[in-house]
Amino acid sequence: MVFSSQLMESAVNEFAKLPGIGRKTALRLVLHLLKQEKENVEHFGEVISRMRNEIRFCQRCHNVSDADICSICSNTSRKQELICVVETLREVIAIEATQQYNGVYHVLGGVISPLDGIGPDQLHIESLLNRAAKEKTDEIIFALSPTIQGDTTIYYIQKKLQATGIRITTIARGIAFGGELEYTDEMTLARSLQNRLPIENYVTGR
Amino acid sequence: MVFSSQLMESAVNEFAKLPGIGRKTALRLVLHLLKQEKENVEHFGEVISRMRNEIRFCQRCHNVSDADICSICSNTSRKQELICVVETLREVIAIEATQQYNGVYHVLGGVISPLDGIGPDQLHIESLLNRAAKEKTDEIIFALSPTIQGDTTIYYIQKKLQATGIRITTIARGIAFGGELEYTDEMTLARSLQNRLPIENYVTGR
Repeated sequence: MVFSSQLMESAVNEFAKLPGIGRKTALRLVLHLLKQEKENVEHFGEVISRMRNEIRFCQRCHNVSDADICSICSNTSRKQELICVVETLREVIAIEATQQYNGVYHVLGGVISPLDGIGPDQLHIESLLNRAAKEKTDEIIFALSPTIQGDTTIYYIQKKLQATGIRITTIARGIAFGGELEYTDEMTLARSLQNRLPIENYVTGR
Repeated sequence: MVFSSQLMESAVNEFAKLPGIGRKTALRLVLHLLKQEKENVEHFGEVISRMRNEIRFCQRCHNVSDADICSICSNTSRKQELICVVETLREVIAIEATQQYNGVYHVLGGVISPLDGIGPDQLHIESLLNRAAKEKTDEIIFALSPTIQGDTTIYYIQKKLQATGIRITTIARGIAFGGELEYTDEMTLARSLQNRLPIENYVTGR
């Protein structure tokens, strides 16, 4: 693409660096911004820079935060004894969206994956063990991806936590709500057969 | 979506205001920026604000420009006597991409469309007539959308230019290169029959 303005060209280039945004989409976004009020566009630029510069990570659960301790950890109406272990803050957002969870989180930053060079030391596992040792904790729920790496991570951490006597659970894996049995892969179907629930548990929940 | 950080939430909200970007995509972009170096993200924000604040429009052709006169108008190796009239700067970029045009442009800013409340006064028609009157101009090529509005605009301007004796043309409309005759709409097919070319013109170009 040839532009008659350097300013425009650099703006398009910057947008095109974002994932999933090609040069045509970038141009569309720039043309859109060009039509907006100057103050709004300035605000857009500022918010982005500020977000990157000022955002912090909660010292307790490693979630994104505006302060040293995030708003979830510092919320006294949430059960601080119930920790849900997740990979990234995307899962925090997904679980919060269900409005069904009232405990706190621990963001690992990924799962153990030796092929990708990610060992236990690259993740926030040590701080989870510290929390389990120092804070009063009733239950740790693992909400990791249903992959071999996820399972390895659960196994690794669970071994380390065994001595604490804390109740350790994982979120249920099975056939998705609204999913069709016929089209479910064998692995999921086999697992959901193995982990079958007494009907009274299914109907009432725990 | 519930965020544990206000800064993040405002950044997601800002991205979600852009056309074609929903909240999930906005979150993906913000998470991407969060992983980038601080300087790069700051640069991103700055480039966007600067672009909006400093970009100007060429006083001659109304194309985007970094100076009073754009780089196309001030390029002396381009034919200043050949003006291509387009709707927006998107078309300038599209035509420049062909690398086949060596004249200058005139950006109207749209087409006459009474239903949308766009009359000749809202467009840069007056300044085109001024250019035709003051500058030495050999030919004006209309490259507008093949719609009723586009045709109306051509007709309106062409009437005003009649007295000048300048050669007025429009880009060819017909079946797209690689298109299939069978699937072409009747209007296009009818027009391309009416505007048929002697074969020697087709083979050699003009």
